[in-house]
Amino acid sequence: MISSSTNQQVKDIIKLQKQPKYRRSQSLFVAEGLKMLTEAAWKGSLVKIYISESAMQKKQGSLIKLYNKYPYETVSDKVFGHMSDTVTTQGILGIVKQPSYSMESILEDKRHMWLLLDDIRDPGNLGTIMRTAEGAGMSAVIMGRGTADLFNPKTVRSTMGAIFRMPFIYADDITEVIMQIRNNGYNVYGTAMEGSIIYDKADYTKGAGIVIGNEANGIQDRVLECITGSIRIPMEGKLESLNAAVSAAVIMYEAARQRRGIIL
Amino acid sequence: MISSSTNQQVKDIIKLQKQPKYRRSQSLFVAEGLKMLTEAAWKGSLVKIYISESAMQKKQGSLIKLYNKYPYETVSDKVFGHMSDTVTTQGILGIVKQPSYSMESILEDKRHMWLLLDDIRDPGNLGTIMRTAEGAGMSAVIMGRGTADLFNPKTVRSTMGAIFRMPFIYADDITEVIMQIRNNGYNVYGTAMEGSIIYDKADYTKGAGIVIGNEANGIQDRVLECITGSIRIPMEGKLESLNAAVSAAVIMYEAARQRRGIIL
Repeated sequence: MISSSTNQQVKDIIKLQKQPKYRRSQSLFVAEGLKMLTEAAWKGSLVKIYISESAMQKKQGSLIKLYNKYPYETVSDKVFGHMSDTVTTQGILGIVKQPSYSMESILEDKRHMWLLLDDIRDPGNLGTIMRTAEGAGMSAVIMGRGTADLFNPKTVRSTMGAIFRMPFIYADDITEVIMQIRNNGYNVYGTAMEGSIIYDKADYTKGAGIVIGNEANGIQDRVLECITGSIRIPMEGKLESLNAAVSAAVIMYEAARQRRGIIL
Repeated sequence: MISSSTNQQVKDIIKLQKQPKYRRSQSLFVAEGLKMLTEAAWKGSLVKIYISESAMQKKQGSLIKLYNKYPYETVSDKVFGHMSDTVTTQGILGIVKQPSYSMESILEDKRHMWLLLDDIRDPGNLGTIMRTAEGAGMSAVIMGRGTADLFNPKTVRSTMGAIFRMPFIYADDITEVIMQIRNNGYNVYGTAMEGSIIYDKADYTKGAGIVIGNEANGIQDRVLECITGSIRIPMEGKLESLNAAVSAAVIMYEAARQRRGIIL
């Protein structure tokens, strides 16, 4: 059993939790909880499991099933507390390989519905957007380089497992991806305060790209210049804007509503 | 200038930030930032302002305008840091009266669109829901007693000012409110995983109540028994549920879409 915080594996986990650069260099991240690790196992991405002493003592059936198949270590509760990013931990976390997708496979997806994020900064928003994108049946989430790190512990948690199921990619230049989608014959709409059409008047039935901008500044001018048209969500009252994850949800579900019953 | 953390006013602010019971007993809360306090002033709810030494030195025009009209205190930056709930503070916060509305005025609102929360627990979700409810043009947000405290600093922040503009009320028994809305001639729909109709097939044009359930457990059985019908948001992939604020947004904006152009 690991019972010292100076243990190399413990230090490594904490580094994976806290340092985006280290996560990137290793192509690894940390996922917590039995559900997330079971998803990681299905995906073939689970590398190693760490279980707290008290979680081990509970002998939960689904946990035993998991650690019988993967390398694991038991960790004292106190040290586990340092490794975990959550306040109320289940006492199980794991090192997981970062999923990776090719731009080709993403652009070829037969649903032809792409969500493009022009630099969403809030980790919770990003996770919620991934989760909603899965529910709304999007092909993939394409992120500009300034978007938050998808493997941030808070983001991973708020995807509720969508991180293992929803294709995604970071694009060096999001305008190039927009032009590719347009060259393939699809419209790309971007949200803007002064958008020229109401979001539900855009036609998503043949497939489309939807660009969501940064929480504070919206879509960059150079990105706005590439899109087919700008859309807006009408707002009552004196509100200046909607939350970015809410805007994304409203538009993705309007697209899903229009496309329901259409055979793709 | 206040420069000691043991100052009674400082202690009082911290108590208002941290203790829901104290907030309730005083019918006060703390709002931070110039925008929020300006809203509070418009609403006639601003009681007193506290400004950090360095914010004071900046002599920002809109800040001067505000503190010329209200009682204020200057506070050393260090002490202000203890009073503020945010990491990157603007250096201005205020004591504000809690807005309060009567059930009568809420039920009489001419838009006839009520959002009912059957115990939303996450402060961020609650604030985002208030913000979206304003944007979607709801009459009011009616909260079951188990719902998070709207005056929690995180919730206040995430309303983005809607807390001063969106009518709301805590109801002792949410089923009684549902029955009242139904007796007034409106349908009340509730979200459920196994909802019998897809949310966009419900008719919101004549007005309606929409019930959103708790993040983990959904709507309570006793509440489900009172509603007109249960609705569901279709989900692709293997997702178990959507985020509560996302579900609320998708349904409220579908109602707004159906009602657009209708003269109320």
